[in-house]
Amino acid sequence: MDLKTELKKRTDFFNIELTNYIKNGEPKILYDAARHLPMAGGKRLRPAISMVSCEAVLGDIKNVIPLAISLELIHNFTLVHDDIMDKSNIRRNIPTVHKKYGEPTAIIAGDLLFAKSFEVIHNFMGDPDVFKRLNYKIVEGIREVCEGQQLDMEFEKRNSVTEEEYLEMIKKKTSALFMLAAEGGSIAGGGTDDEDIGLRNYGRYLGLAFQIRDDYLDMSSDEATLGKDIGNDIRNGKKTLIAVHSINNASGQDKNLIDSIFGNLTASKQDIKKVYNLFQEIGSVEYAKNLAYTYCDKAKKSIEILKDSEAKRILNELAEYSIRREK
Amino acid sequence: MDLKTELKKRTDFFNIELTNYIKNGEPKILYDAARHLPMAGGKRLRPAISMVSCEAVLGDIKNVIPLAISLELIHNFTLVHDDIMDKSNIRRNIPTVHKKYGEPTAIIAGDLLFAKSFEVIHNFMGDPDVFKRLNYKIVEGIREVCEGQQLDMEFEKRNSVTEEEYLEMIKKKTSALFMLAAEGGSIAGGGTDDEDIGLRNYGRYLGLAFQIRDDYLDMSSDEATLGKDIGNDIRNGKKTLIAVHSINNASGQDKNLIDSIFGNLTASKQDIKKVYNLFQEIGSVEYAKNLAYTYCDKAKKSIEILKDSEAKRILNELAEYSIRREK
Repeated sequence: MDLKTELKKRTDFFNIELTNYIKNGEPKILYDAARHLPMAGGKRLRPAISMVSCEAVLGDIKNVIPLAISLELIHNFTLVHDDIMDKSNIRRNIPTVHKKYGEPTAIIAGDLLFAKSFEVIHNFMGDPDVFKRLNYKIVEGIREVCEGQQLDMEFEKRNSVTEEEYLEMIKKKTSALFMLAAEGGSIAGGGTDDEDIGLRNYGRYLGLAFQIRDDYLDMSSDEATLGKDIGNDIRNGKKTLIAVHSINNASGQDKNLIDSIFGNLTASKQDIKKVYNLFQEIGSVEYAKNLAYTYCDKAKKSIEILKDSEAKRILNELAEYSIRREK
Repeated sequence: MDLKTELKKRTDFFNIELTNYIKNGEPKILYDAARHLPMAGGKRLRPAISMVSCEAVLGDIKNVIPLAISLELIHNFTLVHDDIMDKSNIRRNIPTVHKKYGEPTAIIAGDLLFAKSFEVIHNFMGDPDVFKRLNYKIVEGIREVCEGQQLDMEFEKRNSVTEEEYLEMIKKKTSALFMLAAEGGSIAGGGTDDEDIGLRNYGRYLGLAFQIRDDYLDMSSDEATLGKDIGNDIRNGKKTLIAVHSINNASGQDKNLIDSIFGNLTASKQDIKKVYNLFQEIGSVEYAKNLAYTYCDKAKKSIEILKDSEAKRILNELAEYSIRREK
């Protein structure tokens, strides 16, 4: 089976479990707001990684479902709060939670998803010590996501950001949950210490590759493909790897052009295109693509210690997918 | 020793533990924002309840400190997010977090405090099964606070709210954490099932009495005493017990006056005073005061099953304090 079919098999199963878990509740508006985003689909990438990682250490898939649901709820809670901060209007081709339900309810809906991400892990039926370890990994993951989100915002306001700072930021903002997914899947599945560590590193590099590709896509795809506001990153002055590389390598007229458009909230679509073309001329788009390839290789190398299995093959293909995907 | 001295003895100890726990971190602005409110003082009522409850079941005070810190962080996280929703400017006589650091950082700072409330509980060194139970109680508490906060907001937009609905709302919004504090203190201290339940009920009724008194104080104290914007509740059309009782019992001209001022964001201080006087004439202020007294009695009755001790005496005095305090 190809990667898409393999992942679908797992995410179909996951979606049933998720839907059973986040049922309606009272007050209805709050629960509707909390369900709005997770029920609107999404790639379910983090749950899938946790499930395949559990399989890769020959664990029982049932043991990883609470973590898989927790991961998706955490991911969605961060999206709900991020969308408020970024004033985004559309996500997954539907209005964002605060657009539909107002900011106050969106803030609480995010908090509720957050609480439920710690609630669902109580369905883990394994050893209480393993529960405690998983629980702590979740705390760590969320803390890193918070720190990464703050850095991301601070970088928008700064004139220059080094590549090293950028990579530390996306390690926290994106890789943290991929690491939790892969390592947590191993822990829930009874993996050895070496497997835990190997999968943790896999998650780190996969996350980096994934985020760099994400930034790239936001700068190159059209709105219809991505389902979110195109060019927002350029208008917000978001320090993606591509932007960081260009700013640190541009000079003269090029630098002036970037300075005048990058971070300008009212920049036109034409301006966006100009900056994007410059990013390409400087070689930053190519540079980002290549760095993502490097991380893809590192991800695959990290799990060489795993026994050969269908699951291992899927993890390797997922690393490839992370750098080739178009949405 | 009087209640104030007894509580101070415990909160002084607690404050050292809290300060040691929430040290600086990176990114600095995020950690500064997260520390802003918890380091600005506050009554530390929830930690104190958990500590005294632990003592009341003859538990070791060290075992309850992680829960005590968790409670204070949860309380502060909800305040940070509530202040954003309510657009409040002042809390504990200093600017609110979003006023000082901006809304986006305030949202993340609240999330970070939330994450740390689950982090600190990992310092609980008791049995992993007890850890799991405590952890779940925290989840329940936070979920109820979210539900209560949403109901509170929805009630502001509704024309009428029954007393029963109001009491259900404050049970979630306020009592939930008091219940977590008292029952959790018992669980951490190794209390019996009867002690757990007795203290849980104590927390419920103490919370109700406390919240009704809080609503009352917001309507009667001046800004300097309370350290928050006076009359906000009337301007926002907040359905406190006093307001609910008046709206459900006013008629004719009185009803018209309330309708025109209550929920009017631009109401003058004079208008606020008019409505407040009406609340008194209808007897709603007196009614609220009496209901708080009833809950105080119920709180004391709930812990009759506890062995006589200094801690039990303090809990009883705390119930008395909840209905007599002036700030």
